[in-house]
Amino acid sequence: MNAEIIAVGSELLLGQIVNTNARFLSKHLADVGINVFYHTVVGDNSDRLKSVIEIAESRSDVLIFTGGLGPTKDDLTKETIAKHLNKQLVTDRQALDSIEEYFKRTGRTMTENNKKQALVIEGSEILPNNHGMAPGMAYATEKHIYMLFPGVPKEMEPMFLTYGHPYFMNKQQLTEKIVSRVLRFFGIGESQLETEIEDLIDAQTNPTIAPLAGDNEVTLRITAKHQSIEKATQMIDETEKLILDRVGEYFYGYDETSLMSELSKMLQEKQLTIAAAESLTGGMFQKELTAIPGAGNLLKGGVVCYTPEVKQTVLNVKKETIANHGVVSSQCAKELAENVARIMNADIGISFTGVAGPDELEGKPVGTVYVGISIKGKPTRVEKLNLGGSRTANRIRTVKWGCHYILKSF
Amino acid sequence: MNAEIIAVGSELLLGQIVNTNARFLSKHLADVGINVFYHTVVGDNSDRLKSVIEIAESRSDVLIFTGGLGPTKDDLTKETIAKHLNKQLVTDRQALDSIEEYFKRTGRTMTENNKKQALVIEGSEILPNNHGMAPGMAYATEKHIYMLFPGVPKEMEPMFLTYGHPYFMNKQQLTEKIVSRVLRFFGIGESQLETEIEDLIDAQTNPTIAPLAGDNEVTLRITAKHQSIEKATQMIDETEKLILDRVGEYFYGYDETSLMSELSKMLQEKQLTIAAAESLTGGMFQKELTAIPGAGNLLKGGVVCYTPEVKQTVLNVKKETIANHGVVSSQCAKELAENVARIMNADIGISFTGVAGPDELEGKPVGTVYVGISIKGKPTRVEKLNLGGSRTANRIRTVKWGCHYILKSF
Repeated sequence: MNAEIIAVGSELLLGQIVNTNARFLSKHLADVGINVFYHTVVGDNSDRLKSVIEIAESRSDVLIFTGGLGPTKDDLTKETIAKHLNKQLVTDRQALDSIEEYFKRTGRTMTENNKKQALVIEGSEILPNNHGMAPGMAYATEKHIYMLFPGVPKEMEPMFLTYGHPYFMNKQQLTEKIVSRVLRFFGIGESQLETEIEDLIDAQTNPTIAPLAGDNEVTLRITAKHQSIEKATQMIDETEKLILDRVGEYFYGYDETSLMSELSKMLQEKQLTIAAAESLTGGMFQKELTAIPGAGNLLKGGVVCYTPEVKQTVLNVKKETIANHGVVSSQCAKELAENVARIMNADIGISFTGVAGPDELEGKPVGTVYVGISIKGKPTRVEKLNLGGSRTANRIRTVKWGCHYILKSF
Repeated sequence: MNAEIIAVGSELLLGQIVNTNARFLSKHLADVGINVFYHTVVGDNSDRLKSVIEIAESRSDVLIFTGGLGPTKDDLTKETIAKHLNKQLVTDRQALDSIEEYFKRTGRTMTENNKKQALVIEGSEILPNNHGMAPGMAYATEKHIYMLFPGVPKEMEPMFLTYGHPYFMNKQQLTEKIVSRVLRFFGIGESQLETEIEDLIDAQTNPTIAPLAGDNEVTLRITAKHQSIEKATQMIDETEKLILDRVGEYFYGYDETSLMSELSKMLQEKQLTIAAAESLTGGMFQKELTAIPGAGNLLKGGVVCYTPEVKQTVLNVKKETIANHGVVSSQCAKELAENVARIMNADIGISFTGVAGPDELEGKPVGTVYVGISIKGKPTRVEKLNLGGSRTANRIRTVKWGCHYILKSF
């Protein structure tokens, strides 16, 4: 079965909100083996919605609607679908009771238009709304399944998980499940990674391998289809092994993880503390590390040393170092990393000094960055980066490279 | 003119990412008077993309595509459109130069498939990519405009603003212009602000006033329509005056500005330097300030003092202060602000200490935060916040309140 997700709401077309419902539903439909081939967004307009329904029927088995079930005149999803299917709207007693009960409980006055929310398509299966008023519904014909959800994510999401998911599990019992896994890489470009494994990508049809770049990282998504989830998972394991045999040195984690999460996990496991001296990154490394709860046990603290003055007075970089080599130098990065670890009494000191842009500094071009890593009991390591992006991109990349270097030091 | 936004990418249909591009483009197309009637998402599949193009041509004047311009085999947007329009793909010399230059600069090896990114539809207008490799393009026939953007938001967004927006402004010259201005407020809730100006919102049809909350700020968008941009701007000025007469004390800036940008501007104007001591915010204040180019003249530096130990050893908070009042205290915030200004030799010292969550600290509930502000020649000010949000929201709000307090101190 393949599905199309149709969001109804002019607020989406005006750019007031993002269609997060489509993402949620796509992800969960894949879990029950339903391929989503299209997302469509249409405004609160009956004629345009009707034509969208007709197009969707011509190319999809399952039509999932979000939005337009509320009490106002704008809300016309179920009216339009009912008319299209030649069905009446009838009042669902249970839904009406629960709407009345809601108004009693919250002490508000129920206006007449709220009764509209209890109207459902005649003959449909009701999906109760445990987090709001308008119920969802599912209606099946010989050719198509129509499923209607409210547009508010906090109502739609639990409604799908509680009622929509089992509905499709029952329908799908005999067909294929889709399992997918994302492998995350850092330190290799998208095109280089693809060149390394091009023959695998071309040869494989199940599982498939799809590269995806973004945020200066590359990910590969392996997707397998099989009637048994166990077997699909095993197929993914085998494909993963083939890939990592070639480019495993750049691999750092699965699915929704990040380099900073992996660093945090590693520090936690090894019971190591860290301190940072940040020049061009201006606190970004520490901000990201402390975004993860529990960072208090890992990060002793750090210094944002934006000026040469602070590098000297607070972080004790030697005057001669700055005079002879400048602040954008391997020597300065080394002293910063070692000194911040000592001052903060941490196991690891990391430093970032360089030229974020837009202007060059000390005659060094934008993107010249030194990362210093001082680890107790190991020689200090300094890495030079030549980044070529915008100020923001250079700062983000610098932090990622910092995480990468620490992870690769253990 | 009405438009349809077509996102190409299987990752969207698998629910791996949210289609934020559609929101961004919808919002900005409205600003140039283009109505967006549909959003469509389709996978990396040439046949399905072709049929989506045909449907869009039947109902929309402008077809805007995002995604599928990259170097890999999955990327087939321009190939499919060129074939559909019976046009060749030709190498754009300038785009190829800039790709080669990018690889030279970053010291990476350019693989053959990267050349594919310099291919453009014959006869199209090129939209240069200042933040990545693949250029965008615009192609106009008698009936339709086709505009292609990369899928990565940080490439697409500036490309639209720099090249897409003026393109449509030129096309729209003879019709009504839409001018809009956003007023930004901080320190007042959305419902309170709306109550204060409810009668204005209801009475006005041109200009319209639309409240929009987000990011713990409230914004009002004033939108005027007129054939003359000057006249529309004047209408907006008048409406703005009516609004600010009532709630002007909470107003801080226009359009895409932020509290941090306003702070940066103010420091620059007054030639003041600043230093920060950050506990719960973990460097976020400094990271945001240094995101703005030129911050080197304003920010001396700062200390991320995540542990009580660093507060004492590096920032000289008295042992008794922590023993008697704890680190989440007005006294601690005061010493941190004063000491960081002294140590960093800055005109202004700001400190943040509190409970970001998820767990309480020193018996104080999540969201208890003290902000200290020490300004040369003025008595130190400490403000207490009671925030009740998530860890992330509490950190973001704390930084915003810090900017707000400094701005209100001058």
